[in-house]
Amino acid sequence: MSAAPLTDLDRLCIHTITTKSWDLETAAAKFSAAGVKGITVWRDTYADRDIAATGRMLRDHDLSIVSTCRGGFFPGATASARQTAIDDNRRAIAEAHELGAPLVVLVCGAVPGQSLEDSRKQIADGIAAVLPDCEATGVKLGIEPLHPMYADSRSAVNTLGQANDMCEQLKSPHVGVAADVYHLWWDPNLQTEIARCGEIGALFSFHVCDWRSPTIDFLNDRGLMGEGCINIPQIRGWVEDAGFTGFNEVEVFSHRLWAMDQDEYLKQIIQAYRDHV
Amino acid sequence: MSAAPLTDLDRLCIHTITTKSWDLETAAAKFSAAGVKGITVWRDTYADRDIAATGRMLRDHDLSIVSTCRGGFFPGATASARQTAIDDNRRAIAEAHELGAPLVVLVCGAVPGQSLEDSRKQIADGIAAVLPDCEATGVKLGIEPLHPMYADSRSAVNTLGQANDMCEQLKSPHVGVAADVYHLWWDPNLQTEIARCGEIGALFSFHVCDWRSPTIDFLNDRGLMGEGCINIPQIRGWVEDAGFTGFNEVEVFSHRLWAMDQDEYLKQIIQAYRDHV
Repeated sequence: MSAAPLTDLDRLCIHTITTKSWDLETAAAKFSAAGVKGITVWRDTYADRDIAATGRMLRDHDLSIVSTCRGGFFPGATASARQTAIDDNRRAIAEAHELGAPLVVLVCGAVPGQSLEDSRKQIADGIAAVLPDCEATGVKLGIEPLHPMYADSRSAVNTLGQANDMCEQLKSPHVGVAADVYHLWWDPNLQTEIARCGEIGALFSFHVCDWRSPTIDFLNDRGLMGEGCINIPQIRGWVEDAGFTGFNEVEVFSHRLWAMDQDEYLKQIIQAYRDHV
Repeated sequence: MSAAPLTDLDRLCIHTITTKSWDLETAAAKFSAAGVKGITVWRDTYADRDIAATGRMLRDHDLSIVSTCRGGFFPGATASARQTAIDDNRRAIAEAHELGAPLVVLVCGAVPGQSLEDSRKQIADGIAAVLPDCEATGVKLGIEPLHPMYADSRSAVNTLGQANDMCEQLKSPHVGVAADVYHLWWDPNLQTEIARCGEIGALFSFHVCDWRSPTIDFLNDRGLMGEGCINIPQIRGWVEDAGFTGFNEVEVFSHRLWAMDQDEYLKQIIQAYRDHV
């Protein structure tokens, strides 16, 4: 049922937010020295920098730039708010192109009190509005379905099935899915929808961390792989059965883990990757 | 799309935990004086009491006993743990019968690290094991699908679709669903599954509260109806379209609301019921 054990770090990617106290040069140097092969770059890390030079710096460290985080947040109560979001997503796509990242991950957005149906329509409309930028640059977009506990204000797309539906609706080779075990592990349809995502050619990314019991913060209490209840090797097996050969991306938001010595933390990440992904 | 406005309190039920600092006599007297017609009794409130006399006391206050909370927690790592849960559920059924409650609400349970598939099988097996008690007493069981954020340790049944599947699998007139807007509001299949639940004769209960933005506690930060993002009249409309004519049960866990003057809180509950259910 589970995937074969990971015997090397060739497919290990780490999100910059995972070790967010490190600036991008520090993260690149530390990741590279530890044998990490991929990096997903959060946009705040290159604000105020020469983006093309930043991309070269990362590649000089032998790091593959897997994606940038994040675009999205398309829903808005007014047309003006929605246009602001579209403009920001166009900037995100341009930045990814300049950086040399093939993909922008989307946290799609939601507006408290606005119906989820309206938000979903605004998300699809927003993605459609920026597709010409994707076609011009080759940059792809990864719809990340977020856990239902974020349906009020962060994403009206809460299951992989919905993300797959949206990909089929948009019918673009530039639109796919970023599948994160934290958001999806509970879903009784997960295996089926992962297979479907592969069949429609939309499985762009795979993110890992763990769900702690108890979880004490809605945003920043994720666990390192092995600290929680998610059967990550089983889900990785489903993802690989669906044809995915990309990076396994470690994306952890945790006040607890951010507070520890980050060199020690990086060692733990690598050990957890070997043992629990 | 929405249900017709509620013009009276004939279908208003309040869970004892909503005003948990009141003992059962106080809650009964206050609810009744305010015109509330139904009460759902949490089991802790009648521990150490004469249960039959407690039921008479509630009926003497013109309160319909809608259900008791809660049975369930069937999954366990060992056969002994699972038998302990079955024994407790048999006690819950016997208590409900003695109290005069037609229904026991089930929080089905989950074990961190045990697969959700195993937990779901243990839940179905546990319910099947206590069905003879239901048949002997007439007491029914309401499977309450819990929000996916509780999938680790509280319930491996996280969507109305799963609860409906389990009802169809168990094929008993004594097994149905307790549908709570807090757990279900985000589900893109909600309207369809409510209709299906009605068609299979399994829609036993309807619970209301609201989802606040932000929510700051995983258990005890529910909102009073109108304080959050859930379109309760829309969901009530779906429930009534499915043939449901029972009580609208106010079940709120909130450190914030428990800390206020509870007489004032009861007034707010009734106003919120009129305005936002």
